[in-house]
Amino acid sequence: MKVVALSGGIGGAKLALGLMHALGPRELTVVANTADDFEHLGLLVCPDLDTLLYTLGGRADAERGWGRAGESWGCMAALAELGGPDWFQLGDRDLATHLLRTSRLRAGETLTAVMSDLAARFGIAATLLPMSDDPVRTRLKTAQGWMEFQPWFVGRRAEPAVTALDFAGAEAARPSDAVLAALADTELGAVVLCPSNPFISIDPMLAMPWLRAALHGCRAPVIAVSPIIAGQAVKGPTARMLAGFGLEVSATAVARHYGERLSGYVVDSQDAAAAAALAPLPVRATRTLMVSLDDRIALAREVLDMARSIGPRR
Amino acid sequence: MKVVALSGGIGGAKLALGLMHALGPRELTVVANTADDFEHLGLLVCPDLDTLLYTLGGRADAERGWGRAGESWGCMAALAELGGPDWFQLGDRDLATHLLRTSRLRAGETLTAVMSDLAARFGIAATLLPMSDDPVRTRLKTAQGWMEFQPWFVGRRAEPAVTALDFAGAEAARPSDAVLAALADTELGAVVLCPSNPFISIDPMLAMPWLRAALHGCRAPVIAVSPIIAGQAVKGPTARMLAGFGLEVSATAVARHYGERLSGYVVDSQDAAAAAALAPLPVRATRTLMVSLDDRIALAREVLDMARSIGPRR
Repeated sequence: MKVVALSGGIGGAKLALGLMHALGPRELTVVANTADDFEHLGLLVCPDLDTLLYTLGGRADAERGWGRAGESWGCMAALAELGGPDWFQLGDRDLATHLLRTSRLRAGETLTAVMSDLAARFGIAATLLPMSDDPVRTRLKTAQGWMEFQPWFVGRRAEPAVTALDFAGAEAARPSDAVLAALADTELGAVVLCPSNPFISIDPMLAMPWLRAALHGCRAPVIAVSPIIAGQAVKGPTARMLAGFGLEVSATAVARHYGERLSGYVVDSQDAAAAAALAPLPVRATRTLMVSLDDRIALAREVLDMARSIGPRR
Repeated sequence: MKVVALSGGIGGAKLALGLMHALGPRELTVVANTADDFEHLGLLVCPDLDTLLYTLGGRADAERGWGRAGESWGCMAALAELGGPDWFQLGDRDLATHLLRTSRLRAGETLTAVMSDLAARFGIAATLLPMSDDPVRTRLKTAQGWMEFQPWFVGRRAEPAVTALDFAGAEAARPSDAVLAALADTELGAVVLCPSNPFISIDPMLAMPWLRAALHGCRAPVIAVSPIIAGQAVKGPTARMLAGFGLEVSATAVARHYGERLSGYVVDSQDAAAAAALAPLPVRATRTLMVSLDDRIALAREVLDMARSIGPRR
């Protein structure tokens, strides 16, 4: 069964890893949000793509929750000593990814081609794709004005509160041929919206008219997994954003945000009762907190099983 | 006594450190060759400037002979894993220098301004200047055609033999105002040509007409220190280059190469007898092999003493 998973960083990568194990690896295409990407010290840093690269490639640091295992921080220490910017942590091994990618992009390769090669170098048999080779950049409106994503998310630890979002470049950005082909594949059995932040990880993809149209046109059921469990986000600012936008902080509110795009919704068992209000949307309740690899695989299997039971949309 | 030292990398940096100790640090201006600089992975790498930065700043690795002390190699390991270029070793701490410098240059700062700031961050009271803010690049003619410097020097370990040199950009390159001001300073007591490779470290500076004119116009004596001891170079391809150009591999041949520019010449005691042939050029023989810091300071004192004894040129 072929599956396309739309994913942000950490939470999405956990489910993507589960899907890679639950499926044959060549059946999975992961499309990563690139609207968090940014230029730092002249390097293109792609946090969601790289979290997926390291997670699917078995190079992620499990304890820290981001970046590479066995990482060292010599460059950051020297950068601080030289008065350089040290608000964004770049590990020495992680730097190799940014250096190589940036120099290959400058030489004219596409982000899609570079990431495909890096994924192959890490032995990833699944297909890892950026949502687009064109730049899309999330900007956030706060009480202190518009801010770029990483200075807000990392530099300011997701403060101040966000009142509006803009995905600069999304209107004109074209999903790559590989993304469009994956969504147009007649064998596609499911599109999975990973348990990522809907506002800053999934919405930038849906903000691209071409991707919206491709999603609308594909026959596979669209199954989302809630990033909210019992009114709390596992990680990151999803809960605070829901509240800031005047929405209920609940799994149900996330499904309503995605609206008619969803063919099915997977929530945590703790949210089963409340999610009944989403009827007639099919809802499946299970354990969604992914601590172990087994958790990831089990959740992936639930998602795939639900997709099979729903079947093609038309 | 104010001194301007023209220097390449390792050998030159040793004497520059000796001069910094022998002089008051604010009396020393070191002008570094930048014709070995190159773009690597999108970063501007400046081997001679950085060797001077680390040596004068007390951050150089004494055992390895290049790069930073306490260096780690996480980025290189990851780069190799990802199939990136690994022929040029970039330490993790060293990378911070290249990243910060490159991003500041892209933001419009001059190389002179960036290096001045980095030197201050390392507590270097001497003035460390690139020979120019304009790019000059050494190219080498070999039996296999013209090659860029670092691919030849590091990538090919200084093979094949060099039959001619070209300093691309030197004709048009302007030494910075700071270099010209240092050479025009009426209190200048000596210009020192460090024991660097004359062909690839000192000649690129002399290939700039503006620098040649400034050197010609300054009253301070020009004292060179031989990079050849008893027919051998302490390090690097100087001896092989002399032979390749059909010259005698000797301290004397280096002085003849510099010609009438020299007001005085410092050779190793082992070369004293042969150097008598350079008369009427004043020659001083001493220990020129710099192993310890004391060696560096002692050699620097000999050079300064010789400059004082020769006095202004006119």
